[in-house]
Amino acid sequence: MFFASDNSGIVHPKIMQRMVDANTGYAMPYGNDEIMDEVRTQIRELFEAPEAAVYLVATGTAANSLALACYTQPWQTIFCAQYSHIEEDECNAPEFYAGGAKLTLIPSDNKMTPDALAAAIDHRAGGSVHMAQSGAVSITQVTEFGSVHSLEELRALTAVAKEANLPVHLDGARFANALVALDCTPAEMTWKAGVDVVSFGGTKNGCAGVEAVIFFDPSKAQEFEYRRKRGAHLFSKHRYLSAQMGGYLTDGLWTDMARKANANCARLTAGLRANGAKFLHEPQANMIFASFPRAVHQKLHAGGARYYVLDGDVATGPAEEHLACRLVCDWAMTNDLIDQFLSHF
Amino acid sequence: MFFASDNSGIVHPKIMQRMVDANTGYAMPYGNDEIMDEVRTQIRELFEAPEAAVYLVATGTAANSLALACYTQPWQTIFCAQYSHIEEDECNAPEFYAGGAKLTLIPSDNKMTPDALAAAIDHRAGGSVHMAQSGAVSITQVTEFGSVHSLEELRALTAVAKEANLPVHLDGARFANALVALDCTPAEMTWKAGVDVVSFGGTKNGCAGVEAVIFFDPSKAQEFEYRRKRGAHLFSKHRYLSAQMGGYLTDGLWTDMARKANANCARLTAGLRANGAKFLHEPQANMIFASFPRAVHQKLHAGGARYYVLDGDVATGPAEEHLACRLVCDWAMTNDLIDQFLSHF
Amino acid sequence: MFFASDNSGIVHPKIMQRMVDANTGYAMPYGNDEIMDEVRTQIRELFEAPEAAVYLVATGTAANSLALACYTQPWQTIFCAQYSHIEEDECNAPEFYAGGAKLTLIPSDNKMTPDALAAAIDHRAGGSVHMAQSGAVSITQVTEFGSVHSLEELRALTAVAKEANLPVHLDGARFANALVALDCTPAEMTWKAGVDVVSFGGTKNGCAGVEAVIFFDPSKAQEFEYRRKRGAHLFSKHRYLSAQMGGYLTDGLWTDMARKANANCARLTAGLRANGAKFLHEPQANMIFASFPRAVHQKLHAGGARYYVLDGDVATGPAEEHLACRLVCDWAMTNDLIDQFLSHF
Amino acid sequence: MFFASDNSGIVHPKIMQRMVDANTGYAMPYGNDEIMDEVRTQIRELFEAPEAAVYLVATGTAANSLALACYTQPWQTIFCAQYSHIEEDECNAPEFYAGGAKLTLIPSDNKMTPDALAAAIDHRAGGSVHMAQSGAVSITQVTEFGSVHSLEELRALTAVAKEANLPVHLDGARFANALVALDCTPAEMTWKAGVDVVSFGGTKNGCAGVEAVIFFDPSKAQEFEYRRKRGAHLFSKHRYLSAQMGGYLTDGLWTDMARKANANCARLTAGLRANGAKFLHEPQANMIFASFPRAVHQKLHAGGARYYVLDGDVATGPAEEHLACRLVCDWAMTNDLIDQFLSHF
Repeated sequence: MFFASDNSGIVHPKIMQRMVDANTGYAMPYGNDEIMDEVRTQIRELFEAPEAAVYLVATGTAANSLALACYTQPWQTIFCAQYSHIEEDECNAPEFYAGGAKLTLIPSDNKMTPDALAAAIDHRAGGSVHMAQSGAVSITQVTEFGSVHSLEELRALTAVAKEANLPVHLDGARFANALVALDCTPAEMTWKAGVDVVSFGGTKNGCAGVEAVIFFDPSKAQEFEYRRKRGAHLFSKHRYLSAQMGGYLTDGLWTDMARKANANCARLTAGLRANGAKFLHEPQANMIFASFPRAVHQKLHAGGARYYVLDGDVATGPAEEHLACRLVCDWAMTNDLIDQFLSHF
Repeated sequence: MFFASDNSGIVHPKIMQRMVDANTGYAMPYGNDEIMDEVRTQIRELFEAPEAAVYLVATGTAANSLALACYTQPWQTIFCAQYSHIEEDECNAPEFYAGGAKLTLIPSDNKMTPDALAAAIDHRAGGSVHMAQSGAVSITQVTEFGSVHSLEELRALTAVAKEANLPVHLDGARFANALVALDCTPAEMTWKAGVDVVSFGGTKNGCAGVEAVIFFDPSKAQEFEYRRKRGAHLFSKHRYLSAQMGGYLTDGLWTDMARKANANCARLTAGLRANGAKFLHEPQANMIFASFPRAVHQKLHAGGARYYVLDGDVATGPAEEHLACRLVCDWAMTNDLIDQFLSHF
Repeated sequence: MFFASDNSGIVHPKIMQRMVDANTGYAMPYGNDEIMDEVRTQIRELFEAPEAAVYLVATGTAANSLALACYTQPWQTIFCAQYSHIEEDECNAPEFYAGGAKLTLIPSDNKMTPDALAAAIDHRAGGSVHMAQSGAVSITQVTEFGSVHSLEELRALTAVAKEANLPVHLDGARFANALVALDCTPAEMTWKAGVDVVSFGGTKNGCAGVEAVIFFDPSKAQEFEYRRKRGAHLFSKHRYLSAQMGGYLTDGLWTDMARKANANCARLTAGLRANGAKFLHEPQANMIFASFPRAVHQKLHAGGARYYVLDGDVATGPAEEHLACRLVCDWAMTNDLIDQFLSHF
Repeated sequence: MFFASDNSGIVHPKIMQRMVDANTGYAMPYGNDEIMDEVRTQIRELFEAPEAAVYLVATGTAANSLALACYTQPWQTIFCAQYSHIEEDECNAPEFYAGGAKLTLIPSDNKMTPDALAAAIDHRAGGSVHMAQSGAVSITQVTEFGSVHSLEELRALTAVAKEANLPVHLDGARFANALVALDCTPAEMTWKAGVDVVSFGGTKNGCAGVEAVIFFDPSKAQEFEYRRKRGAHLFSKHRYLSAQMGGYLTDGLWTDMARKANANCARLTAGLRANGAKFLHEPQANMIFASFPRAVHQKLHAGGARYYVLDGDVATGPAEEHLACRLVCDWAMTNDLIDQFLSHF
């Protein structure tokens, strides 16, 4: 019963098989392998972006930091949600890669709102040399609270950025989970909505460690290549990254897995709701922020369930006190395990 | 006939199988997987270093840059051979990770010499605040010219460093190839010879993408962990790095492969020598720098051989003119392919 | 009627004279001048800190950034008030000098509070490698809103920092104005209150361009010297910095000027209050944040007054609408000019 | 008898007087003072560059580092002479400001040669992402060995840079000394010779601490302003920088002083030559690298002469052994002091 994260499950066997299949003969290193040529084509087609520059790296933090660095000068600030991954969980990697740039946090209970974003941008406006200058806007989809921006919401945010002439990055570590939740196309959720560059995640959705960085403006390609190499993120045996991404994108495996993960989450949500749990945010993809009595947490812990309790001490305190927790479902979670989890209520 | 590099061949099937075997159930992310516990134990035993701090990253440049950053302040300089990998082939990654530190190049035709190193250190001595201060010494083993420092040579270099109170890094992208060439123990080639931190390569010797960074002084552990995360080199699904390294180190596979690569190189060297090729450096591991007539290069190219010609134009010029080239043998190279290569002379 | 800032007035003639006096014969460069020896002694005596390491730089941003960099690793975050100078007015200099570190903003309407600081530190606590680690706490005295932390308030803040084992920096660009407002000693407002390093401003209080950085822990001295040189802030003709600081500290000139500036501010405050102005913050040193009717602003502008209007359009709008502004008095402001300003009400 | 450097003498009284004269009334801060407007005009006229972007900073290292950062990406390398100031005497400031860029040293006994520069650029050519990419070429005029590139030599160097499409920076810490040695115009020694940006020194030639950075391509202006502020090199009370530069440029004071410094050097050179000293480099401006017997050094030291002995121990060794030293003459050096120096031979 592992609900702690979607970064701890297995690689989909079909993806693993692609790595095994790729393990024959010599292949050009550093992204010049033939599988990468196929992957580039796959992604350009999927995103209806025949000119897009497409690159692979192995971690989500690398994807975010390198993408943002291409759009942010060291004297600028990146605008992001207060609880975004780039702020909370990347140990200053975005600042490092962008040469000491700042992150400006948009206050947000759940999703970043256009008004809050506009206020933050306004605060930096005016051109004084003393202030951090405005750089990229980074939007997270699925958010760290398990929410999904609708296409309208996305477009409203990018409109604020465009109004200020700022580029837009999408942190899509859970891109697939959002896409299937919205039932839209990759193009609709990215460039058609005003996104300039996307971190297109694979790792959390069934790959071993691969993320694509997709620039809809290919003029950023050369700079990205230098930054990737200088960041030590250019793989010599690149074919094993390519193979993962190739397997991920073939025959809709990536959306199948995301649909399964979201369905697992929906089943768990329904069960929690039926058992009186409260929800801090309405689950929209594969993550749940819920609270329920300490006594249930205690039973779950005793039963071997693994997940993050956000506050409070599970072991000690009133049995009926509600404690909040985060529950994440990956594609490999089974109905049996979910039901087993729910049986502790 | 791929002799361009040892970064383009296949992963050893046993290592690939370990990745497949690891692909079951949930595993703790970010280096807390159980396989990593085994790998740590394996490496500590191999290096006779029960306290060593052991980490995995996916690229050699990451291993070098992160290791050096832990031993170099931004206002210092790293001493390295003129044609070292960190100077020539890492696109300023060491400077980036060390916060803008400098690389001071030790003039060297082949191996760095103690005298040349001492002269460079002396030039920086004296404590003036105006000059870059002295930081780590980085030694490459196998060198970029295919040479192997003897243990005496290594100790003479580290003695110069220790005399100046400087830490020593070993770039061991081809650690195994050097080890079997010297027929010594890992401890003898590292901490017993005065090395403080080693980049212990796996990628060039049959892994998909994994390098260990081994600190013999575990007090650097915490800093490394922050630097690795900030560099975006901490893998969530870390077990697939662990599995590679675990397979690599099991039952002596790593030295078996290195021995095979070196033997391949020796066979090719002997054949080249018999055919009148000249050697820029005496091959000691799995890399050859040789020159032979343009006409032979032309035949090899026509025959599909892949390798780097270092200077001159293969297509045009006197047939008998010698052109230098680099030839690298990995463990998977076969006698047949070597003989096929030699048949063009 | 220049009330825009205290960075635009003249240098006190006695300080200018010290620069002229210093202009004779050869002097050792780079801080080894004899005047600097005197300054070091003066500052150590003033601060009752015989071991303190004392350095001069020419700008407040340099003082802050270099001081903080000595106490903050690149993977850490500096805790500071939401509207501090280091956040709002230094164009990412602190991030630059600290190698890409982060600033964590403590929400504050006026002064940073211990509770808000503790909450921010708690949020970062726990040691996860994913998050920015906790670095220095930076307190501004006088704050950017013209407030002065009492000694009790200062000690309460540093107690929170010390509880978390974090070093404390004091941004004292207006150190003298705060000191005379509190009527305390330099030691009481710094190391006796738990401050580890202080940016001791001279520029805003009658010097041409000089700030001292004072480390109460002299073990930071060597690192600061490298950082200052690497930042290009080590002056060859250092005696002209020393002479300024020497003149500033001689015969209490520095506190005389601060007292005069604060008195100027008090006179202006009283006049504004008598005329019905509202105060956004209670003025405690030499800065006023007040609001009064647009019609008055219009008369002041027409009369040649220079100051920052914080929001709204002076030219257009209801005459009676209040607009907020910032008014700063330096030591050279005269009663006549203040009264002239007030005569527009 | 202070011959150690031209950074230790007095400020020219006329320049000091300009600072005193500027000390009246309020002035706009941060470079918006009226004196700066005049300085900008003066420099544009002097350099026959009506569009040039002109900025002032207080140290030569700031001028060099900020100028170079505007022309060098973090993944690039700056080409400079082996013994240039930016390599030897700036404690990694250029690397710091350029975000971790590299310096590639052009081997040179005295002046950088076009062939050596071309060879270094060629070594980096080819576009491989693995290598540091080619950035700016930095030429020092007067060189650190007291040599002056002729206009032909300058043009030959910049031609090599332009051939490779690289920008050219001139480190003119001793710009005036070179200019009067060549008897040419500022334009001839800069943009007409292919220079894109120049560090125009004042500090070593009679100012207290001021250098101009002059961009002949004004499109770099905005970036420089952000970099200067972020580097903490933007002065609030900027008028005192402006006043220095204004005085320096008025009525040819700057060239008068340089002519005097060079004449002092010529007198000392002639005297040394007459006394049998040997010259490591032929003095062409205001610096001498000469060797003469230890016994003379001993007499000079006893007589109070101050200068750098480059190697060897003055106190101990054969009296007749030659020791090399550096002797620098500033504008304020007198014939009497020179003759007094020579009287020790």
